Amino acid sequence: MRLITGDDITAAERRLDGRVVRTPLLDAPVLGAELGLRLAVKAENLQHTASFKVRGATNALLAHAERAGTPAGLVAFSAGNHAIAVAHVARAAGLPAVVCMPPHAVPAKLAMVRRLGAEAVLTDDLLATAEAVAAERGFHLLAPFDDPDVIAGQATVGREILADGPRPDLVLVPVGGGGLISGIAAAVRAGSPTTRIVGVEPDGANAMSHALRTGTYTLPARPASVADGLAAPFAGRHTLAHVRALVDAVVEVPEAAILPAWADLVEATKLLVEPAAAVTLAALRAGLVEVTPGERTVLVLSGGNVSPAALATLG
Amino acid sequence: MRLITGDDITAAERRLDGRVVRTPLLDAPVLGAELGLRLAVKAENLQHTASFKVRGATNALLAHAERAGTPAGLVAFSAGNHAIAVAHVARAAGLPAVVCMPPHAVPAKLAMVRRLGAEAVLTDDLLATAEAVAAERGFHLLAPFDDPDVIAGQATVGREILADGPRPDLVLVPVGGGGLISGIAAAVRAGSPTTRIVGVEPDGANAMSHALRTGTYTLPARPASVADGLAAPFAGRHTLAHVRALVDAVVEVPEAAILPAWADLVEATKLLVEPAAAVTLAALRAGLVEVTPGERTVLVLSGGNVSPAALATLG
Repeated sequence: MRLITGDDITAAERRLDGRVVRTPLLDAPVLGAELGLRLAVKAENLQHTASFKVRGATNALLAHAERAGTPAGLVAFSAGNHAIAVAHVARAAGLPAVVCMPPHAVPAKLAMVRRLGAEAVLTDDLLATAEAVAAERGFHLLAPFDDPDVIAGQATVGREILADGPRPDLVLVPVGGGGLISGIAAAVRAGSPTTRIVGVEPDGANAMSHALRTGTYTLPARPASVADGLAAPFAGRHTLAHVRALVDAVVEVPEAAILPAWADLVEATKLLVEPAAAVTLAALRAGLVEVTPGERTVLVLSGGNVSPAALATLG
Repeated sequence: MRLITGDDITAAERRLDGRVVRTPLLDAPVLGAELGLRLAVKAENLQHTASFKVRGATNALLAHAERAGTPAGLVAFSAGNHAIAVAHVARAAGLPAVVCMPPHAVPAKLAMVRRLGAEAVLTDDLLATAEAVAAERGFHLLAPFDDPDVIAGQATVGREILADGPRPDLVLVPVGGGGLISGIAAAVRAGSPTTRIVGVEPDGANAMSHALRTGTYTLPARPASVADGLAAPFAGRHTLAHVRALVDAVVEVPEAAILPAWADLVEATKLLVEPAAAVTLAALRAGLVEVTPGERTVLVLSGGNVSPAALATLG
């Protein structure tokens, strides 16, 4: 399996320039003092569509268009943030979009997809439905994570972390299907070989850890996590290869640790993030990641599409 | 009444360098599309202590120390954000601090003051108590807003707005006692004479509008607003002079418009702000501020110290 290269990432940077937000890397002194670390957060909740997903989707569309011309439309399958990202990217490109979402998708995410003008199809058979739409209408299917162009788009997060702050000792990344950590690992490993890159999964949605242990991509049962943004039912072939080659460790955080960390993360950083973004803080607090006091540590805040009702639990 | 000068602001910038956060100026495309404006927000909720107040307090302490030597301690009176800022500044300087707060202060803000190591004195007689403490212990009293050094500190927000984005057509600023808008107006008026600067008060806490209309500083009754951060019972002599000389208008927004704007502001920007920060959005939506479509508009998000319980109303 070929890993993405520095040239792939540079091409993605060029395609994304002006189309995505260069999100700020913000010091997090309150949490840093608690943890004994020099802590910063990469605020991808401030990205267009409030998640990093728009980076990969934008790169994948534009790279496809360079190779094969602009498609008639876009189709995607996703429980949430990738769906919103594809709806946004399609609208920005003036293309129609069909997004296949599971019936249990968070209502706020479904509403956002429709508000962006995409057609939402609710189905339990995500991949087959998306492939059928692609074949019938001649639309291009944008994969949620297991695609080198998507990974190269997400890698721009890693390039920005290196460019906008001092060299980190440790970068912690939430893991769903693995696209974000694959890209960040490719960028950070190349630019800062001594930086450790650690992924964090909820133990209720641990497709990557399962794949690392067993070599099989699909979880035996449907994942269920309070971090709904990470509930990928399978790891990818490309992402597993990147994680195996470039990531130091993937740890599994207990479900019960996620919401308390989330509440404190929002309160301390004053950033509205979704629970998925808090698994890294939960892992640090649970002692699942080996750290040395004072290490420069970056938490990647993957997204901010949180159901407003969930906020009440913060009180 | 002497207005602060560009030299005052430059001196404040030097004192604040490395001591406060250079907060990001973030595009707000979702709200901008709703309002037909090119909208950005200055995210002072991401400042140390989650409000702009630490700028003025830092500058006032350091300017005082340059003139008279480092004081034995600091004393302040405030319902909230200035109290937290003074506690923070005292701790950073290694000084003891006494903060006089009203008995109805938001519990989360009181807790924060104590967590920062300051002594909190609950009293309805804020000014007299603070002056007594200052006299008895030889502590230096840091005024919440009506002080040229405080105003010069807040003015650094205006300098950063001009430095970090295109020249704005309009800057909207929440108004409590008027320190923030006085400083921003001084900086922006000097750097961009055609930019309009408009203040927004809740109609339940309208000390500045009252002072502009009547020439008297103190409100006839204690202010009450859902935007607790703006509930100053009086305008200042220095701030009223700056507002009269430099601000285009101060408008009063109905209390009922504030919380809905706050909920949408948090959801659209993904920034945790306090209700005070949303009065500007509420004023735009209510048509209280004259705008031309497409104008570059900056909303100053004054702070993010929100009671967690209040978040439940977002659901």
